[in-house]
Formats: sequence, C-alpha cells, structure tokens
Amino acid sequence: MKKNTEITKEIKSVEKLIKKDLSKEKIISGLYKYIFKSSGKKIRAKLSLISSSTKNHKDRLKLASVIELLHTATLVHDDVVDNSLIRRGAKSVNNIWTNSHGVLIGDYIYSKAFMLMVDIGNKKILKELANATNDISQGELIQLESVQNINISINKLKKISFYKTGRLFEAAAKTGAILTSNSQAYIKNISECAKNLGMVFQIRDDLLDYSPEIEIGKPAFQDIKEGKVTYPFFYAFKNANQMEQRKLRTYLGNKKLNTSEVNYLITKLDGIKKTEQLARKYHIKAIESAKRINNLSVRQEMIELTNIALTRKK
Amino acid sequence: MKKNTEITKEIKSVEKLIKKDLSKEKIISGLYKYIFKSSGKKIRAKLSLISSSTKNHKDRLKLASVIELLHTATLVHDDVVDNSLIRRGAKSVNNIWTNSHGVLIGDYIYSKAFMLMVDIGNKKILKELANATNDISQGELIQLESVQNINISINKLKKISFYKTGRLFEAAAKTGAILTSNSQAYIKNISECAKNLGMVFQIRDDLLDYSPEIEIGKPAFQDIKEGKVTYPFFYAFKNANQMEQRKLRTYLGNKKLNTSEVNYLITKLDGIKKTEQLARKYHIKAIESAKRINNLSVRQEMIELTNIALTRKK
Repeated sequence: MKKNTEITKEIKSVEKLIKKDLSKEKIISGLYKYIFKSSGKKIRAKLSLISSSTKNHKDRLKLASVIELLHTATLVHDDVVDNSLIRRGAKSVNNIWTNSHGVLIGDYIYSKAFMLMVDIGNKKILKELANATNDISQGELIQLESVQNINISINKLKKISFYKTGRLFEAAAKTGAILTSNSQAYIKNISECAKNLGMVFQIRDDLLDYSPEIEIGKPAFQDIKEGKVTYPFFYAFKNANQMEQRKLRTYLGNKKLNTSEVNYLITKLDGIKKTEQLARKYHIKAIESAKRINNLSVRQEMIELTNIALTRKK
Repeated sequence: MKKNTEITKEIKSVEKLIKKDLSKEKIISGLYKYIFKSSGKKIRAKLSLISSSTKNHKDRLKLASVIELLHTATLVHDDVVDNSLIRRGAKSVNNIWTNSHGVLIGDYIYSKAFMLMVDIGNKKILKELANATNDISQGELIQLESVQNINISINKLKKISFYKTGRLFEAAAKTGAILTSNSQAYIKNISECAKNLGMVFQIRDDLLDYSPEIEIGKPAFQDIKEGKVTYPFFYAFKNANQMEQRKLRTYLGNKKLNTSEVNYLITKLDGIKKTEQLARKYHIKAIESAKRINNLSVRQEMIELTNIALTRKK
C-alpha cells in the first residue's frame, strides 16, 4: 500500500497523463486544456489509486485517469443540462463557449476515456465501467424528470444520489481492486465502502448547497433555484405545516429567492439536521465496510476519505 | 454471403435487439422508444452486416446494433448542437422535450452501445470503435468551429466529411470484417471501400440539402442557414466574382433567405456541378476498393450500396 503522500504524487501523474496526446486541432486542445486547468479534488481518481495500491501494476495511473475523464465528461454535460455558469471556481464551458461546445467536448472526453480503457484491456473492468456510465446517465435523466416534483419519494432521491454519484465511486474502487487483486472479499468490501462513501459525498454536497456562498466558494442555493428537491428541502417539506409548505413551493425553481429566508425556514424545519443524520447513516455503513478491508493501509485510507467526505466544508 | 433479402431481415432483428432490455424508468424508455420508432435507412448497420456476412457468428447482429446505437447517439447530440427541430421526418428530441433531454439520452444511448460492445468482447473491435467515436467527436467540433468561416479550405471540408461520416462507415465495415474474417486483405479492402462510400454519402447529403424541400421530404437549405459552408457553397464561392461573393456572404447563417435565389446562384456558379464531380471521384475510389474484395457477393453488395449512395434522392 502506498502512503498518502505517494497517492498525492500519483495524482499529479494522472493529471499529466490526462493531458497527453492532445488533439492537434486548436479548438479541441483549447477546450480540453481549459477544462483540465483547474485541478479539482480528484477524489474518484484517488479512490481508484488507493483501491489498486495493493500491488504494482503498469495500468494503475491509466485507470485512475479513465475514472477522472469519465467524471469530467459528465460534469461538462451536467453544466449544459443545468445551464450552470460556474464550475470549480471558473466559468463553465457553456458559459465561455456555447452549449454546443459543451455537448461535443463532453463526447470527446468520454471517448478519450473509452480509448484508455480499451488500452488497459481488462474485460471485467470494461464491463463495470460500461454499466456504470449507463447507470450515471440514467440517474441524470431521472433527476431531470424530477425537477419541480415536490412529491418525490426518499427512495427516488436515494436512487438519484446513488446513480449520479455513488455509482462512479463504487466503479472507481471496484475496477481499481479488480486490476490488482484476485480477492473477491477485497473487491466486495472496498466497492461497498466506496459506494456508501459516494452517498456521503453527495449528501454533503446537497448540504453545502444550502450554506452561505462565502463559505463554500461557489454559488449556493443552486439546487432549489433549479427546481431540484434534494434532502434538506425534502425533509423540511415533510415537517412543514400547510402554510410553510405553500412557502416552500414558491422557493422551488425560483431564481431570485431570498436565500437567508430559505436558509432560515429549511433549518427551522429540521431539513439540515435530518440530512446530516442521513449522511452519518451512510458514513457508518461506509466505515463498517472499510473495517472489513483486510489490507491495513487501504483500510486506513478509506476511513480517512470517508471522514473527509462527511466533514468537508467545500 | 447472405442475400440482400436476408440482410433486410437481419436489419429487422437489429431493430428488435436495439429495443431489448429497456430501462424500467418511464422517462428513459419513453425517450428511447421515441428515438427508435422511425426506422431510418440504417445504412451503417447494413454495412456492418454485409461486412460480417462471410461467416456465421453469434455476435453479428449485436455488432450491427452497436454501430446503429453509436450513430443514433451522435444524431441526437447533433440535433442539440444544431438546434434542429426535425429528424427523420419527426420532431427531434430537443424539440419535443428539451436540449437537456437530448444531451442525456444521447449519453444513455452511447453507454448502451458501449455495454453491447463489451459483451462482444473483441479487443480489436473495441479499439476501432473507441478510435472512431473519438474521431467523430473531433469532426463535430471542427465543424462547429468552422461555422461562418467563409475561408475554409477544401481539405478541412474533406476532413470534416471524413470524421463525421466516413469514419463510422469505415469502422462499421472494418469491425464487421474483423468479427468474421482473418484476411488482412479483406479487412483492408472493405474498410477502404466503406470509407469512400461514406464520403459519397456525405457529399450527396450536402447536395440534397440544396434541393427543394418537397423532393427530399425534410427541411432543405439547413446548412447554409446554420452558417455551414459545405461543398456546393464552397465551389460556388470560389467561382464567384466580387459582387456574387458579397451576395453569398449575406446568405451564410441567414435563417430567412430566399431559397430559390440561393439555389439559382449556387447552381449558376457551378456549386452543384462541382460537388457532383467530387461525389463521383469518391464513388470511383469506392468502386475500385470494392472490386478488390475477393468475396463475390460482398463485392456486389458493396458496389450496389455505393451506387445507391451516389444516386439517392433522400
């Protein structure tokens, strides 16, 4: 198992690998370089590297790059879908260029991931990543269909969180494990852990969106403005009386809402507290799976990542 | 080698296969069924089936489905990129639903192709299709960047035609051949033939866009309205005097142009004639490669497809 500092070093190599073999077409390399300029957290690539760290393998960095490329392709398309203007603290592709550029460079990044995967050439890994990308696109579509749906169920919300986030976390860990281990128990435990860690990460994301902009360093209250019911809104709405429900309804999809008013009401109705409880529930599940991981250093790294996911402020 | 009627029957099976294992999510199956409702020409799937027809192989239909899925995914994204309202005689996804739906269901279809490919599990086929999808997305981006570029070179135009159309024709034939043949000569000849056939198909497409709407059964003069320089415009512009060039400039990207006026000027300046010459040039190349195909029936089928590509009215 590699030490944390080593993983950090490897992430740098992943960043380099992603930028290798750039297209000679100026428009393509320009878009591509812009997208990969800001470095981001790369938690999915890290997961892949940790999971595959039980042995040396020539394709470890390549696989982590694939995961990061897949994730970035979905981000670029998401920004088009949500009409988001900011990504990782900088203007989104669809903001600087156009939606069309976002769609096509997303496809380009996706196909690049696909080329690298094929290079690795492990059939089980290919299968897992094909299934995961399919699930991710399903999650995005279900989420799109749920916009402005005030009656969404908790199960649908969990399905969306799993498909759009948990699934790639799971695939990152699973494929990393497949690459370097034959232990079915190891593959299963780290996949389970990563899946729940992904849920914690997404729930925390939903919570952060209800925090003041100044604290998280990016536009806040985006979900509610886009008409997306996420956990804080869901729980608050459940606890609301008729008048409060009417109020909450007027917030959903309202681009010009008074955010401190929203914050007050959602907090008062336990939307934040209940969501924090849910995050802790998945955190416990993730830790339980982590504890079943035999490899001591991997176990520690996974526990650390899970704790970061729960407490991160950005 | 299967007879033409047999290929037609197989195309029906491909259509069924594409619709198998539909998502249980209503929004996804709804979009998906809508997209695959109209049957289209399926020339790429046909190419794949012809190319793989030298032997029986359990994955022939699956591979043809992959090709058709990949093609459809790019069409759905293209309609978002071009803001097209009509596809195959019906309203486009982005027209009935939204651009967001188009982006996400395109990704879904793409990942579905990917899953089927992995099922087939032939590394050479995976590699060719990964490279092809990458080239296709590059072609689309280059084309997007060339909008309103009156000074585009003939080489850039050919590159766009190859990347966005010839490349998948080539990959369809090549992967079909790889699936059922070990003959390097066969793989090379049919790939070459398909690539040039794809060029004929695209050039003919550009020509048809300059035909009266009533004849082709779909909106005409879309390219020029979208600001795209295609071959007819390119050649006409080259032959134009200064006054005519000024006129042509006003057409490009003009959504409300007088189409009979455009038609008159482009024809008068030999834009149509020169483009037909170019199509015939690629037609000859395709036929030459076809003649080198050893398998008599495949050769005949390929020649027939090439002739259809040159003369088709729709």
